[in-house]
Amino acid sequence: MKNVIVGQSGGPTAVINSSLLGVYKTATDRGADIVYGMVHGIKGLLERDIVDLSQRFKNDLDNDLLKRTPSSFLGSCRYKLPDVKGNAEIYEKIFKILSDLEIYAFFYIGGNDSMDTIKKLTDYGAEIHSPIRFIGVPKTIDNDLAVTDHTPGFGSAAKYIAATTKEIIRDGLVYDYPVVSIIEVMGRNAGWLTAATALAKGEDCEGVDAIYLPEVVFDREKFLNFVGNLLKQNRSVVIAVSEGIKIADGRYVCELSEHVDYVDAFGHKQLAGTARYLAGEVAKTFGVKTRAIELSSLQRCASHIQSRVDVTEAYNAGGAAVKAAFEGLNGQVITLKRITDDPYMCITEPADVHFIANVEKKVPLEWITPDGANVKRELTRYIFPLIQGEIAPLWVNGLPRHIRLNVSTKK
Amino acid sequence: MKNVIVGQSGGPTAVINSSLLGVYKTATDRGADIVYGMVHGIKGLLERDIVDLSQRFKNDLDNDLLKRTPSSFLGSCRYKLPDVKGNAEIYEKIFKILSDLEIYAFFYIGGNDSMDTIKKLTDYGAEIHSPIRFIGVPKTIDNDLAVTDHTPGFGSAAKYIAATTKEIIRDGLVYDYPVVSIIEVMGRNAGWLTAATALAKGEDCEGVDAIYLPEVVFDREKFLNFVGNLLKQNRSVVIAVSEGIKIADGRYVCELSEHVDYVDAFGHKQLAGTARYLAGEVAKTFGVKTRAIELSSLQRCASHIQSRVDVTEAYNAGGAAVKAAFEGLNGQVITLKRITDDPYMCITEPADVHFIANVEKKVPLEWITPDGANVKRELTRYIFPLIQGEIAPLWVNGLPRHIRLNVSTKK
Repeated sequence: MKNVIVGQSGGPTAVINSSLLGVYKTATDRGADIVYGMVHGIKGLLERDIVDLSQRFKNDLDNDLLKRTPSSFLGSCRYKLPDVKGNAEIYEKIFKILSDLEIYAFFYIGGNDSMDTIKKLTDYGAEIHSPIRFIGVPKTIDNDLAVTDHTPGFGSAAKYIAATTKEIIRDGLVYDYPVVSIIEVMGRNAGWLTAATALAKGEDCEGVDAIYLPEVVFDREKFLNFVGNLLKQNRSVVIAVSEGIKIADGRYVCELSEHVDYVDAFGHKQLAGTARYLAGEVAKTFGVKTRAIELSSLQRCASHIQSRVDVTEAYNAGGAAVKAAFEGLNGQVITLKRITDDPYMCITEPADVHFIANVEKKVPLEWITPDGANVKRELTRYIFPLIQGEIAPLWVNGLPRHIRLNVSTKK
Repeated sequence: MKNVIVGQSGGPTAVINSSLLGVYKTATDRGADIVYGMVHGIKGLLERDIVDLSQRFKNDLDNDLLKRTPSSFLGSCRYKLPDVKGNAEIYEKIFKILSDLEIYAFFYIGGNDSMDTIKKLTDYGAEIHSPIRFIGVPKTIDNDLAVTDHTPGFGSAAKYIAATTKEIIRDGLVYDYPVVSIIEVMGRNAGWLTAATALAKGEDCEGVDAIYLPEVVFDREKFLNFVGNLLKQNRSVVIAVSEGIKIADGRYVCELSEHVDYVDAFGHKQLAGTARYLAGEVAKTFGVKTRAIELSSLQRCASHIQSRVDVTEAYNAGGAAVKAAFEGLNGQVITLKRITDDPYMCITEPADVHFIANVEKKVPLEWITPDGANVKRELTRYIFPLIQGEIAPLWVNGLPRHIRLNVSTKK
């Protein structure tokens, strides 16, 4: 038997299901007997919550819907495998289940934590001389994985963010009085997504007036001076900030707010957003109308505006993972390697998971302007190829159609 | 000379520029000499801030870009004409400017306040026996204008809201722990936009679990009980609320929050959002993860997902306004009259502005379920035809292209 199993982990992206399809189709094409899916990742696997994917994806229509469906089809988890030392029983259990299922190769689609899972399973497998191959398929809108040029999921999120930013900029110009709009973008430690707002600038758009990334210490006074100067010239000011910007003493900007929104039953404070706090400061200082716009989870689920490059690369990464495993590789992550910028060409390449797991790739400081309030052309040149091309939704009754979810949605 | 003038007023929509194009093209086709545009509506007109539109829209590409460009191309204002009594000089000034420009017909694209402008100008014009014709073109995402079956702008906003809601619902199912997502939708007094979240439900989507419109008094205890019951059955709960829901004593729900975000230089309190307040209450009561998602201004500017029906009707309403004026009508608003639901057919029809200005059309109570927590099929049947069809963006370098704005963006 040549069975394989695949799981999805961490936050979803608009193309995580394209990688799932890449794994499923390629494994089937290459003669896998059963392609299993873990429901809610490794956490589900530990409870033997698995499905036979051939029962879910039955025809070309299913496949094309799957590509266009946001969120992780199999469900996800935020479960980090503990160190094997002191927790051998968890590893024994996982390998027992995999052995019962006669698993030949194990694929995990995810970000940093998921690659850590691949690393730990590879290392444990080597210790016990298991024949199972473990391959990681990268996925994260945050684009913060090492070694790979970029991660599947980033391109579509960047396309959504850039298109939305263009619309917000135009909207901000509608009245004849000053308005300061602050757009808050995801990415707590790495500013890649926030930098994507720079793509809005072009022949038909003024672009954002400032971009604040978490890679640079945020200075509240400098920010307010900057906005004050902008307000002297422009009617509408649009600024993009990462949710993760911090001041010099290490506190997040959103922690500067005088109030917390609420404290939940576990005592966790829910902080007001960074954009809301800054909008408040601008309103207080300059007496102008402000708008705080949090792009929130729409950034990771807006599958109605996918990048075709991203969809294709996500699919290819899934396929390349199967190819790698079936050719005997183990403990690898499929990375994307950019060959040329223009024309854009990019190939997949397996890389040792030990170089990737637990490393966070940030925006290089040399791609940020010296004042820390914008990004350089190198950065937009890096992102632009990743948002190219579209994959139109399958419109049914006026709305994008998704694949039917028959993994349970009940408790 | 047969010159005409057109202005845009109030909040923008994704199709307000299609109405502008409808006015421009039809007026040109019917032999208008110059089609003027008021920059920032009647407020700009009072300062003689006007442009010759033939200098802006030069070819078919410009026209197709204009249709796809969000925000009001000419800029907008929120200026309400004062009563003529005691303010005759303002009216005299307007008619003097119109006379200097040799204006034959005056078109105003807007919502309730703008139709009030048309009414007042019509009445004053009649008093002084002016030959100028005044025609209103309806526009508002809120869909709250009387007489007309619906308003241009509503369909595209509804399509955006429904598509986004589908994505949020699927995203909410990704983890294996309970999450309550609360989506806040625009429409302070009328619940049409919030009701559009009901369209998400279908063969591929569970739909939202509850919908709270401003037409019904909101009861905090009933709401929390309802959520508690939902959490017993479902892992993910998604609820749509209007920004304008109020409790029995008339206060907005967002006013129940213990804090204000900030007070600006004019002493205006900026209240935390309705969704944020309710998410806090749910988190405190049930100790579950919550998400508050404000669709904010994206609802009115997401031109990358326009409804084709809406674009066409917006264009037609502009064209019908010119036809009405050129056939001698005055003091009219172009309304949309639905002939049949399925197949959907709809025509334009002029109606006396006095029946439309200053009347607010709300969601009929008989279209809301008795528990006040959802809408009936009559309501989704009413909205579905309005979100049908797409008009793909013109994608340039991976992003939707807009028409170049050469109305000044500086102060």
